[in-house]
Amino acid sequence: MEITKGITTTAIFKIQDKLVTPKEDFLAVEEPLEIQLVYNENDTIINKSLSITMRTPGNDDILGIGFLFTEGILRNYDAIEEVTVDTFQNNVKICFKPNHKPLLPNSERNFYITSSCGVCGKSSIDAIRTVSIFEKTTDKIRIPVELIYELPDLLRQQQEIFESTGGLHASALFDLNGHFIMLQEDVGRHNALDKLIGKALQQSLLPLDKYILLLSGRASFELIQKAVMAGIKCVVAVGAPSSLAVELAKENDITLIGFLRDRRCNIYSAAERIMV
Amino acid sequence: MEITKGITTTAIFKIQDKLVTPKEDFLAVEEPLEIQLVYNENDTIINKSLSITMRTPGNDDILGIGFLFTEGILRNYDAIEEVTVDTFQNNVKICFKPNHKPLLPNSERNFYITSSCGVCGKSSIDAIRTVSIFEKTTDKIRIPVELIYELPDLLRQQQEIFESTGGLHASALFDLNGHFIMLQEDVGRHNALDKLIGKALQQSLLPLDKYILLLSGRASFELIQKAVMAGIKCVVAVGAPSSLAVELAKENDITLIGFLRDRRCNIYSAAERIMV
Repeated sequence: MEITKGITTTAIFKIQDKLVTPKEDFLAVEEPLEIQLVYNENDTIINKSLSITMRTPGNDDILGIGFLFTEGILRNYDAIEEVTVDTFQNNVKICFKPNHKPLLPNSERNFYITSSCGVCGKSSIDAIRTVSIFEKTTDKIRIPVELIYELPDLLRQQQEIFESTGGLHASALFDLNGHFIMLQEDVGRHNALDKLIGKALQQSLLPLDKYILLLSGRASFELIQKAVMAGIKCVVAVGAPSSLAVELAKENDITLIGFLRDRRCNIYSAAERIMV
Repeated sequence: MEITKGITTTAIFKIQDKLVTPKEDFLAVEEPLEIQLVYNENDTIINKSLSITMRTPGNDDILGIGFLFTEGILRNYDAIEEVTVDTFQNNVKICFKPNHKPLLPNSERNFYITSSCGVCGKSSIDAIRTVSIFEKTTDKIRIPVELIYELPDLLRQQQEIFESTGGLHASALFDLNGHFIMLQEDVGRHNALDKLIGKALQQSLLPLDKYILLLSGRASFELIQKAVMAGIKCVVAVGAPSSLAVELAKENDITLIGFLRDRRCNIYSAAERIMV
């Protein structure tokens, strides 16, 4: 069934109070998709890479079509000759009929500008990973799970003002003893983390390998990538991580914790740093 | 206090069961920020527009610095001569010292590619709004609030499989009688909506002016913009809307409902379409 493409499983440690249970858990799949346009201009076939988006595989054809439509590049479904999806290469090609043209913005420059999401702004799928300036180091960090359990309450104490809107994402930094260091909030989760890392850089705190990062929502690839750039070793999310977030955390020896609530959490990687 | 820049108020109708209360409510501010680089190359001052991100105003300086660092463009805080924030123009300029250069990707093309978020990929803040192909029409749509209250349960019935991961955003379409039409899910909320609109285009359902769009999470500017492109007149979000989402909904005569849960919701715009 096509819909199950969007789900994968991973081995986790489920912790409830002081009880640790190894189990297999479900993850939403997150993978890059390159959206490509193919059209005819002055008898030449143009193949243009338009966008890379982090998406859940499945229905890539309608994702490509919908993206072109909501961006104003495609106005009429009849203009499409063919849509081909290459699930191995993670790309979708939308081919226009010979007598139809995509409505691209007038200036190339208008169109080609990077986003702040840390994923777009790269011309190929291989290029979405940025490289940290910090060398990988070994460490003997050990964090009691009791300390992890206390973080959401400590965050809420700091969040009082912004909580009134219910519409903001938070990134918070704690030291390894659970002392609150700083909080940044934003409508965009990547912005909240960029603000936090920018402030840490300003205060000469980098690399942040002696700190815990708490995320108020889900953990996506781009957030773990930013954590890698800042040298963070322990990321705790109140929500779910994506498949690629877990993969990247494993690669970079980051302890990734998700679904933290009511003295419960899941550990997805580098579990040896958490003491129960 | 700087932190309050991030919050604004708006007049809403709060509905609980059958009781309607007009009140003033808080919204998280969402506004575009242009991140600009200024540096010296061969004795010429280069001013480069790097990115436009939808952010909550406040701490724009550290947002710009953090973005440059997590993108690998800035490696050392000492390279910065000055950071200037223009809150009126919504831009932040990060100026490098004369003997320091930003680490831009080798190829321009590598760097300048649009994102799928419907916001980036535009070269100026004025250009972030796309224009719908559908003419504004008047309508006499009236939707009982009882029908709105039922939507989350109808969504959950369809979501069974994907709910296992807890990590996906959903966009669902219902007709004006509350009948389920389709559901799309993705790790990226903009992708879920692009998939839905792409499928609707494929099925010749556009404009979607006789349908209700249900969003599983928050309503941001980019989601309302996509709804405008598809001609949708009624958007219902389980979470909070941003300031710019409400503004855009008002401009386009879209009924925007937020915080829908347990027979309660807030109406932010075009409330005349909802019958209590």
